[in-house]
Amino acid sequence: MSALDRVSCAADVKALAPGELPELAAEVRAAMLETTSRTGGHLASSLGAVELTIGLLRTFDPEKDRVLWDVGHQTYAWKILTGRKDAFPTLRQLDGITGFQNPGESACDAFISGHAGVALAAAEGFAAARDRNGGDENVVAVVGDASLTNGMNLEALNTCAQLAKKVIVVLNDNEMSISRNVGSFARLLGRTISGVRYNRVKAAAERAGHKLKLTFLRGAYHKIESRLKSLWLGNSFFEQYGLRYIGPVDGHDLKAVENALQVAKEDKRGVVVHVVTVKGKGYAPAERNPVRWHGVGPFDRATGEPAAKSSGASWSDAFGAALCALARRDPRVCAVTAAMKDGTGLSAFAREFPDRFFDVGICEGQAVSFAAGLAAAGMRPVVAIYSTFLQRAVDQIQHDACLQHLPVTFAIDRAGCVGADGATHHGLYDVALLRPLPGMTIRTPTDAADLAAALDEALAAGGPWAIRYPRGAAAAAADVAAAAGTVGGGEPEVTLLAVGDQVAKASRVRELLAGWGVAAAVTPVNRVKPAPALPPHPFAVLENGAVAGGFGEAVGADFRFGWPDCVVGQGPVEALERRHGFDAESIAAALAAALRGKERKNG
Amino acid sequence: MSALDRVSCAADVKALAPGELPELAAEVRAAMLETTSRTGGHLASSLGAVELTIGLLRTFDPEKDRVLWDVGHQTYAWKILTGRKDAFPTLRQLDGITGFQNPGESACDAFISGHAGVALAAAEGFAAARDRNGGDENVVAVVGDASLTNGMNLEALNTCAQLAKKVIVVLNDNEMSISRNVGSFARLLGRTISGVRYNRVKAAAERAGHKLKLTFLRGAYHKIESRLKSLWLGNSFFEQYGLRYIGPVDGHDLKAVENALQVAKEDKRGVVVHVVTVKGKGYAPAERNPVRWHGVGPFDRATGEPAAKSSGASWSDAFGAALCALARRDPRVCAVTAAMKDGTGLSAFAREFPDRFFDVGICEGQAVSFAAGLAAAGMRPVVAIYSTFLQRAVDQIQHDACLQHLPVTFAIDRAGCVGADGATHHGLYDVALLRPLPGMTIRTPTDAADLAAALDEALAAGGPWAIRYPRGAAAAAADVAAAAGTVGGGEPEVTLLAVGDQVAKASRVRELLAGWGVAAAVTPVNRVKPAPALPPHPFAVLENGAVAGGFGEAVGADFRFGWPDCVVGQGPVEALERRHGFDAESIAAALAAALRGKERKNG
Repeated sequence: MSALDRVSCAADVKALAPGELPELAAEVRAAMLETTSRTGGHLASSLGAVELTIGLLRTFDPEKDRVLWDVGHQTYAWKILTGRKDAFPTLRQLDGITGFQNPGESACDAFISGHAGVALAAAEGFAAARDRNGGDENVVAVVGDASLTNGMNLEALNTCAQLAKKVIVVLNDNEMSISRNVGSFARLLGRTISGVRYNRVKAAAERAGHKLKLTFLRGAYHKIESRLKSLWLGNSFFEQYGLRYIGPVDGHDLKAVENALQVAKEDKRGVVVHVVTVKGKGYAPAERNPVRWHGVGPFDRATGEPAAKSSGASWSDAFGAALCALARRDPRVCAVTAAMKDGTGLSAFAREFPDRFFDVGICEGQAVSFAAGLAAAGMRPVVAIYSTFLQRAVDQIQHDACLQHLPVTFAIDRAGCVGADGATHHGLYDVALLRPLPGMTIRTPTDAADLAAALDEALAAGGPWAIRYPRGAAAAAADVAAAAGTVGGGEPEVTLLAVGDQVAKASRVRELLAGWGVAAAVTPVNRVKPAPALPPHPFAVLENGAVAGGFGEAVGADFRFGWPDCVVGQGPVEALERRHGFDAESIAAALAAALRGKERKNG
Repeated sequence: MSALDRVSCAADVKALAPGELPELAAEVRAAMLETTSRTGGHLASSLGAVELTIGLLRTFDPEKDRVLWDVGHQTYAWKILTGRKDAFPTLRQLDGITGFQNPGESACDAFISGHAGVALAAAEGFAAARDRNGGDENVVAVVGDASLTNGMNLEALNTCAQLAKKVIVVLNDNEMSISRNVGSFARLLGRTISGVRYNRVKAAAERAGHKLKLTFLRGAYHKIESRLKSLWLGNSFFEQYGLRYIGPVDGHDLKAVENALQVAKEDKRGVVVHVVTVKGKGYAPAERNPVRWHGVGPFDRATGEPAAKSSGASWSDAFGAALCALARRDPRVCAVTAAMKDGTGLSAFAREFPDRFFDVGICEGQAVSFAAGLAAAGMRPVVAIYSTFLQRAVDQIQHDACLQHLPVTFAIDRAGCVGADGATHHGLYDVALLRPLPGMTIRTPTDAADLAAALDEALAAGGPWAIRYPRGAAAAAADVAAAAGTVGGGEPEVTLLAVGDQVAKASRVRELLAGWGVAAAVTPVNRVKPAPALPPHPFAVLENGAVAGGFGEAVGADFRFGWPDCVVGQGPVEALERRHGFDAESIAAALAAALRGKERKNG
């Protein structure tokens, strides 16, 4: 029986002999690769956190102690080793294992973790509650070096010593954000790790430390180490926050990790354990190019090549190309992103216009205020952010951009249902959140050419503009034009307002309705604020966003189709649409019933 | 002619002899007291920043250089000395001088500044634009010690050296947040200032420095000073971010302030000038109790006593009392706020339940995630925040509270129009922002007793709850009960759904309509999500929030009265309501015209 075969719950990890752990780590990596090569997923981070996970599970009790991961895409090993080994092949699939920490899935998942920056603040909440309830559980926040620069974590760091008696912070430092880490803090950590003199001492000290068996000696070793470190490095970053600093520890040395975590557990004060890991560890293609392997689709395990070519150019690609074209014509145009350079299609822009490209890290609020400053100084910034993360910057959009009516354009990628990433990543609320803000225009391009046109319009108009478009392949302008109009002859009984990416679906609805003798017209809608001219009643709105607060409500549509007021899970977009009555068949059936029902009532 | 008489624009401040500046400072303070004793305002911060303002105006050109204040309630001296002396008596009044920095008001105001945390990020935008346009203007961000702990400023600090060649950060350190400053950073600054050995050296060095006339000598002095400082204090907090640190400087010593700013101006790198000021400086009542004098209503200058007693208990008081009662019954109940202890009515709670009261500082996002952690650990946290600042935490509410359906209650104070604080502080959007979030309940209590009931219900219900109520005096339950129903006999022609605080106004509308022969019913609405049972059409909604995305839209009201889709300014609530057609007379007239018009059309 292999090591992984003998692990069916977290306690089994503790029962293994230290000599068996390297085998366990290798098997966990193989299981991850096996599943993600079929399902896609956040591979590189999870590959890097295998030894850390094993160390955590051997040191803490995941059902009693509370371990919060920030963000949760490093938790595949955690999931595999805390009772979800057999279910793991359903990762990211409809009703399957989710891609992030999820308390609904396991008692070992303490807190949801799809958005960065949350874990430390929430951990302080757990710890403060423990202190008041007389509990003795450990509370651990595992924070990546990139998400540590998020303002939420910095705020929480500042109050950590005040709000709770003790939180253990594990800094999982892979020197890598989703794109590339930014900022002084990253440089500081880099310097810490690479300090030559320090590492020489450190290596010797660790060799000595590993031989120590007794806890009090381990404690003494770390005390000496801490003195040495202060002397050589002056690494007082965490100590100024009242937290003891332990590290840097080689995050792939099982013994070193476990040792450091054990010391942290035994200390009475808050502790930071600084663990250095390699993103993509153990899978050569991912080690070579961790950015590409941050989040991937299905791939060939042997070569690392994607299993299938994507179907046509994505909306993100269309955005990147259009913005480059615009920037060539207008030197004021610049791009701002929050650690989503590749995901938002800005890589080519960053190469061509390095001086006009700004990546502030996982700091959406700062990105927007920074862009507002650029705009107030005469630039024309375009802020490219995923819809779900733009939620972090609603206030900055209202206060900085809208109240001053500044020419900041928001390129809202992944707007609507995103599929496999699930509940924490759907972009369902951007229309509802931005529509009430004064002076805001919201464009919902129907195709790639329309997206480029929207950028041009935003530049010419000069106020706050939002342009929202979904994940995946962009429609072609010709197809959209062909879809508009009525099928079935004569006056339509109902008009289908197809917002943004919904034209093809509306066209299918019209076809189905025609089959049932109901004539419907399709009108593509590429702007939801200010509202366009409306057709006569009755009309239906199809929009890839929340119905509550959406365009359909705004214009008083007779029928409103979109995402309902509930938590939408993960899976193929089509499957989720069917589940929530937002696929063409459900929409057509609902409309036919309502219209024919009405006729019956009237007739 | 007095010193202030000779200052009609910023350049005049430079023209004054150094010996005249103390007189100028005293006159500016007198002008502030003169106006705010009539209008109310943010007095304590502005009193503390007079010498700093004079120093800034003598060092920089406010029309060319960009000086951003974070937040802008310290800028009364700035306003008085940059051409707004004569208009200053209109402070906070309808169409008068606004209470915060406002580019619409003066070319000397670089950026809007009603919400904390924005200035440094925006300043980096100004500086990055300057670097790319070959400009030579100085960019200065004046940040309070409390707002420095806001995540936005910490994010911006981290990337400051990367995003722009040079930004000057003035840390205006009065050791005081709106309530009391919190966190490790505050302690760090406190230690820095009070270090005995350091101050002894510092005082001597400053005496020496003041005598130096030549810039290069001043530079040398600061270089030596910096060495001394590092030696004694290890104050590397800012230096680790690549910023030169100058200070601490006595912020009421005109010469010291100007000297430090001049050095900062001449340096090629980014600089932090740490200025220590006294909140309320120069006005004894405010120096004695700076918390009470943070924001005040009209007062008697001689005694400091409020000019008028407030009319009845406020919603905030009602909330505080109800929460105390709840906490006495249920040990799980705790309170979380973000530097708004007094404003949200939590002072008594903090005294009675110090162990269950948490103030995280100006960190709304952290407050919500922290509360979600408390809730996940079995506590029942109530997060008390002003509506306008809750905008900072929309994502945390959606991701942490709603997706996990955690029992976090949001006590949303200052919901609706706030009057004199104006555009940056109105709480118009909370309903629109929270309504689309899954599992959220939104209560809109109609009176103080109903607010207490809403808290009870939230505790019993166990999911995310929002309770919104406005600034000012709470209605009495008896008055609300008396107002419900129809006036005029027979079937009402229209039902007025009066949301939350709108019952008295709806009652007045009904009275006016009755005078014109239109019978109307008033139905108080104390919950907007889930929507209550609706009356037959036609019905009107009156809500103290944005119409776009509001309750009226959600329920398809025939007539929707609230705040329109534009920037709403400052002034008495009643005057703003009249301006925007949201007073009883305008509503009644609009309804009568629509209903009678309809009749004419039909008849």
